[in-house]
Amino acid sequence: MDIVPQWIIEKKRDGLELEAGEIRAFLQGYTDGSIPDYQMAAMAMAIYLKGMTPEETAVLTDVMMRSGKVVDTSSVPRAKVDKHSTGGIGDKVSLILAPLVASAGLAVPMISGRGLGITGGTLDKLEAIPGFNVNLEEAEFLDILRKCGVAMIGQTGEIAPADKKLYALRDVTGTVASIPLITASIMCKKLAEGIDSLVLDVKAGAGAFMKTEADARALAESMVRVGRAMGKDVRAIISGMDQPLGRAVGNALEVKESLECLAGRHNDLDLMEITLALCEEMLLMGKAAGSREEARGILLGHLADGSALAKFKEMAALQGGDTAALDDPGRLPRAKIVRDVPSPASGFVAKVDAQAIGKAVLVLGGGRQKTDDRIDPAVGIDGLSKVGERIEAGEPLMRVHANDEERLARAEAIYRDAFEISPEPVECKPLILGRVGG
Amino acid sequence: MDIVPQWIIEKKRDGLELEAGEIRAFLQGYTDGSIPDYQMAAMAMAIYLKGMTPEETAVLTDVMMRSGKVVDTSSVPRAKVDKHSTGGIGDKVSLILAPLVASAGLAVPMISGRGLGITGGTLDKLEAIPGFNVNLEEAEFLDILRKCGVAMIGQTGEIAPADKKLYALRDVTGTVASIPLITASIMCKKLAEGIDSLVLDVKAGAGAFMKTEADARALAESMVRVGRAMGKDVRAIISGMDQPLGRAVGNALEVKESLECLAGRHNDLDLMEITLALCEEMLLMGKAAGSREEARGILLGHLADGSALAKFKEMAALQGGDTAALDDPGRLPRAKIVRDVPSPASGFVAKVDAQAIGKAVLVLGGGRQKTDDRIDPAVGIDGLSKVGERIEAGEPLMRVHANDEERLARAEAIYRDAFEISPEPVECKPLILGRVGG
Repeated sequence: MDIVPQWIIEKKRDGLELEAGEIRAFLQGYTDGSIPDYQMAAMAMAIYLKGMTPEETAVLTDVMMRSGKVVDTSSVPRAKVDKHSTGGIGDKVSLILAPLVASAGLAVPMISGRGLGITGGTLDKLEAIPGFNVNLEEAEFLDILRKCGVAMIGQTGEIAPADKKLYALRDVTGTVASIPLITASIMCKKLAEGIDSLVLDVKAGAGAFMKTEADARALAESMVRVGRAMGKDVRAIISGMDQPLGRAVGNALEVKESLECLAGRHNDLDLMEITLALCEEMLLMGKAAGSREEARGILLGHLADGSALAKFKEMAALQGGDTAALDDPGRLPRAKIVRDVPSPASGFVAKVDAQAIGKAVLVLGGGRQKTDDRIDPAVGIDGLSKVGERIEAGEPLMRVHANDEERLARAEAIYRDAFEISPEPVECKPLILGRVGG
Repeated sequence: MDIVPQWIIEKKRDGLELEAGEIRAFLQGYTDGSIPDYQMAAMAMAIYLKGMTPEETAVLTDVMMRSGKVVDTSSVPRAKVDKHSTGGIGDKVSLILAPLVASAGLAVPMISGRGLGITGGTLDKLEAIPGFNVNLEEAEFLDILRKCGVAMIGQTGEIAPADKKLYALRDVTGTVASIPLITASIMCKKLAEGIDSLVLDVKAGAGAFMKTEADARALAESMVRVGRAMGKDVRAIISGMDQPLGRAVGNALEVKESLECLAGRHNDLDLMEITLALCEEMLLMGKAAGSREEARGILLGHLADGSALAKFKEMAALQGGDTAALDDPGRLPRAKIVRDVPSPASGFVAKVDAQAIGKAVLVLGGGRQKTDDRIDPAVGIDGLSKVGERIEAGEPLMRVHANDEERLARAEAIYRDAFEISPEPVECKPLILGRVGG
């Protein structure tokens, strides 16, 4: 086809639907460099402002997926299921969910990204475990998957290079928050894993990318539609993200909290509630359970009998991790300074600003602002009080772990206003706001 | 000011009004290269789809004008007036208007562009005169202006480099047809000439950039508003462009037609009507006449007594042109093949498609498709029949001038359908559709 890039841009600019061949030619041209960044930037802004139909979004996702390698998991005999979250502060769900679902007999071929901005990435958390290697070749990845049913690695340059290039461009051209572009970016990478089905955790709220439930639902519906158009079983849960998930934020501290949860000793209901809800959908899609109730029974059994924790250790060992540090989390990286943050008043916790806590941990060194920033795995916060809990003046709202007094002072200026204490009991919002495609 | 380019893009994307400092910082960054093409492309698309207020457009124009040199014409003692046309097929008005207005005692410091696409540029027409040099230094330009009151040159790299860069980008990103961007592009260059006042000829119709009268009026109002915000007297005429202007299209052929008009021997009412209407506004703004009627009397006098034609020759001589070719137009470049195009029927000319005639002349070699194409000054068409005129079958609708049988055959396939002959007399539309700011 004879494609003039600016004619395709003009068509989208005027709000018309692009043909599959036009989307393919444009994206392929962008990936191979024959269409320059500035034409893609104009196109991305036109898509941002004029939208895309579900059919256009599905084609875009497909082209981006096919821009790189699609992992062939046919040698793995189990049903392949995965989870993706749009990201939130303290979200360590993957570390608990992946071994738990694998212990129930399904395969979880999880390829994750690194964190940028205030939400830490799954890879950064795993790397807090001494020796844990997330940079595996595909053959090793498949080998571990066959052996223990779960492997967690980073995105290689071979997976969806079109997305990598486009994402970097969107980041600097004001075109990130577009539902068709987010849909294609997430789904092209997940579908390149060679999975059969996928559950999505779409966050809504002050600490999330989608601030409103309506926006989160629109994104969830778009992703479910595209996944199904591409022949995969996809479901989504919409969950609240106003306060952090769990009681720890920071890489080693989140590994520690995950190990507690895998051992059945969780102390935060929200974290286990969302983890189990997502696992249930995975077991249903993977035909490991016939109902949510049956799925929950299986999952609680694997938490109680230690098989979920054992699965995590098995995977960690296969990926080079120091299992002694998992048996004794005291051997995980530890910060030099550990300090309580006392409550200024007695009452009920009315607000814990996830955004502020995330920023404070970033300032402590637990996240990265630029892609080449080094992360300090030891720093963060734990023992976090959650909304609705009773607290007395002087009792700790949380504990801060820092390696540097200067950074601690800067973090303190941020988290100081993260909490609100009310003299009256406060009502807790439900965590799971809705489901799509279930 | 600490400026993050994507925040400014996002603000315009969301339909908000940008502050003057934001527009300045963004455009200056783009001009000095610190803001890359892809961010400007996203911004241009956001401006295309969300628009700009008159205040934003005026700031944009000002920044683009100040990106380069503003000619200092204070050494020229007369009132400085100029004209700009949005371009149409066969539009040779500048060649007649500039010496005519100068002969009436005003100064016309005209800096023009080259043609791209189907409309030939004023510079290309002037260069059909052997020896005519449009590439003058500013000092020579001012010197000629002081001597004879009119000089016509090309845009140097020193005039509005921001516009040059942005125009090339808009051309390939689907962001050309945006009223604020067109306004800034035209006005920044014209105001950099150091003029006191400006008349605009904004074309509307099938052969023009603005297809409807409403769009042409919106563009005219935007340009008049910006010019006045920058302290200049600006007026606009909205004129129809369905059929070509005059009876010749092609560079040397248009010079020949212009010389006829300057000698008072015009044979196309439309061409002289629009030229005189624009000149009248210039004489009024330059205080060389107190009313349109008085202005017209002065102008017709300079056409009748030969002083307008003498002024053109004086300018041509000062710019290196061969005046012998002006005295004897047979010495202008001539094509090898000259062929009549016979009318297929008897009746009244109902349509002459300007776009098709323009494309045919482009194919003959009279225009350029890429900026580095060479132009053949000799080719084109003349003796064109105009809408409303009576014609007999076999009589010439026009005469084609070509230098190559193969190109002639390709041109013929285009102009074959340019004409419609009606058995009934047809109504002629008025040429001047409206005025803004007069």
